[in-house]
Amino acid sequence: MLKRWPGNPLVTPEDVRPSRPDWKVDGTFNAGVARIGDTVVMLLRVAESVADAAAGEVRVPLLEPHGEGWRTTTRTFRTDDPAHDFSDPRMVRSRADPREVHLTSMSHLRVARSGNGTDFAVDDAPLLFPADRYERFGCEDARLTVIEGRCYINYTAVSDLGIATALAVTDDFTQVERLGIIHAPDNRDVCLFPRRIAGSYWCLHRPAPLHLGAPEIWIARSPDLIHWGEHRHLAGCMDRAWESAKIGGGAQLIETEKGWLQIYHGVDADQRYSLGALLLDLDDPRIVRARLSRPLASPVEDYERHGFFPDVLFSCGALVEGGELRVYYGAADRVMALGTCALADLWAAMGV
Amino acid sequence: MLKRWPGNPLVTPEDVRPSRPDWKVDGTFNAGVARIGDTVVMLLRVAESVADAAAGEVRVPLLEPHGEGWRTTTRTFRTDDPAHDFSDPRMVRSRADPREVHLTSMSHLRVARSGNGTDFAVDDAPLLFPADRYERFGCEDARLTVIEGRCYINYTAVSDLGIATALAVTDDFTQVERLGIIHAPDNRDVCLFPRRIAGSYWCLHRPAPLHLGAPEIWIARSPDLIHWGEHRHLAGCMDRAWESAKIGGGAQLIETEKGWLQIYHGVDADQRYSLGALLLDLDDPRIVRARLSRPLASPVEDYERHGFFPDVLFSCGALVEGGELRVYYGAADRVMALGTCALADLWAAMGV
Repeated sequence: MLKRWPGNPLVTPEDVRPSRPDWKVDGTFNAGVARIGDTVVMLLRVAESVADAAAGEVRVPLLEPHGEGWRTTTRTFRTDDPAHDFSDPRMVRSRADPREVHLTSMSHLRVARSGNGTDFAVDDAPLLFPADRYERFGCEDARLTVIEGRCYINYTAVSDLGIATALAVTDDFTQVERLGIIHAPDNRDVCLFPRRIAGSYWCLHRPAPLHLGAPEIWIARSPDLIHWGEHRHLAGCMDRAWESAKIGGGAQLIETEKGWLQIYHGVDADQRYSLGALLLDLDDPRIVRARLSRPLASPVEDYERHGFFPDVLFSCGALVEGGELRVYYGAADRVMALGTCALADLWAAMGV
Repeated sequence: MLKRWPGNPLVTPEDVRPSRPDWKVDGTFNAGVARIGDTVVMLLRVAESVADAAAGEVRVPLLEPHGEGWRTTTRTFRTDDPAHDFSDPRMVRSRADPREVHLTSMSHLRVARSGNGTDFAVDDAPLLFPADRYERFGCEDARLTVIEGRCYINYTAVSDLGIATALAVTDDFTQVERLGIIHAPDNRDVCLFPRRIAGSYWCLHRPAPLHLGAPEIWIARSPDLIHWGEHRHLAGCMDRAWESAKIGGGAQLIETEKGWLQIYHGVDADQRYSLGALLLDLDDPRIVRARLSRPLASPVEDYERHGFFPDVLFSCGALVEGGELRVYYGAADRVMALGTCALADLWAAMGV
């Protein structure tokens, strides 16, 4: 259903300056998106790796304690080192303790701005760079939500302690205040609602449980955006193939006349990521009013099928403007792209 | 260090009436404990299974929707059914979808009372029986914490949606009010503090992440006991064998002159559960002041080594009275036992 923008991809790694001269940019994807006045702001996930590893070596980017804070460094492994397992190109694992892991790339969050929503200028420096114990392996997959005039940034804080969700806030996309971990591991794909409902703030979140249960979408409630409770399971995997293995939240919630629109992702048994749509009740978002049975979009274009991780569409931000749904999405964990559809067509497909 | 009570075990399955005539009690263990006036109250986990399965059959207890609520039922599987896997005696798994699971036992929470802290009379009926979507497989491992004059019960709500932590409150151990899910899956071993510190309520919790990280102890903060945030990693596994595989919270927090005392559990590579002790700063419980390097106790007695699951000591409740630490603990997932030690000896062993 999603019509690809002819100028896709919108942002590629070649458009982004690395944060260190000895690092290279592998991906610019999974961006949070917000309209701020005349500007469409993207907060890109920029994934970087060490540029100049010698043959027979793997060098990983890393955060290490430095004085009161943290700084980046690199660590070099020899690929003939029998103590480590290099079989997964995304990580280096200790053979003695499989929980001792280093990731081969590290992500930070970088601003890009556009007047027309399609031509983006990317900042030269990060807005939010990994800087604490919970971000040793990176900051990923930001969502932007304007609530009561401030722009909240929720993002995935990744470390050897687990994959958690952190919150930050900015008023100008220059200064950022970190507000701490709002969902303990293993929890990502958090999507905020842009206003209070029934007196509370709300979010979707996606626990990934170790024992029973599957990675699916839950909803929680908060008095202050910092402390969350009243957790409920909201939407699960379905028998239809495209969302049979796992699902998780995507874009920030969008208020429409039909309800709260959520663009989420569904994953099939072959790890192929498609986009889906959910509609939640305006007055009680714990009620699912409609769910699109087929994908809003699945990977078909070359930049969606081939990249860092193949066959991935993953949205962290969308806008509804002039009756049109504009879904910004990361494609194949490498580039940013845009797809649009008339809201009326979406409602018809959802039967509302 | 823990001196076993000569009258151990304190409570056994033989002391407890099943909740249905066709069910049997397999375990009475992992009880929360509180002193309420002259009475020591235990809230036992009572694990039950179906009594009368025929040869070649497995019958599982189950909650099913009934009208507006839920009721218990049983489901029978033939052990020669090729669609299901019966190799783990604790569960029946669908071979087509390993996430489709039934547990062979279901737990509820039952009150026992004692005037002297060692002779307990067990109620004939459950206090808190599984009754909602999040409790389809049972309610487990309660902790009792008296806060501002009310007794809060946090417990593990187990279902096919995951292992979550729920909160309830009672004033009389007759009526209970459920307060919902306070930690989404996979999260159990939650321990509350009995009063506000720096204006907030606090808890320890134990996320079990699917991807990175290990099952370890985190701490969180709340304005109201319902909504939790400001999550921080508090204590991890250690190189010493007895707590090398995982750790998790045990008893409710106990205020002492030296700090907040936490009796927790550590698990070794062979799934052997020992008891440990942590001391947290009185004014800022995010600071670990001391940690016992050796176990407070490890399974040695016959009732600790052999039961439903071998070699387990697991405390959900402890008291400090007259300079003595009294640790109530589940042994081998079957019975309740008591161990004591002089607080002065514990402080000496912890170096405080």
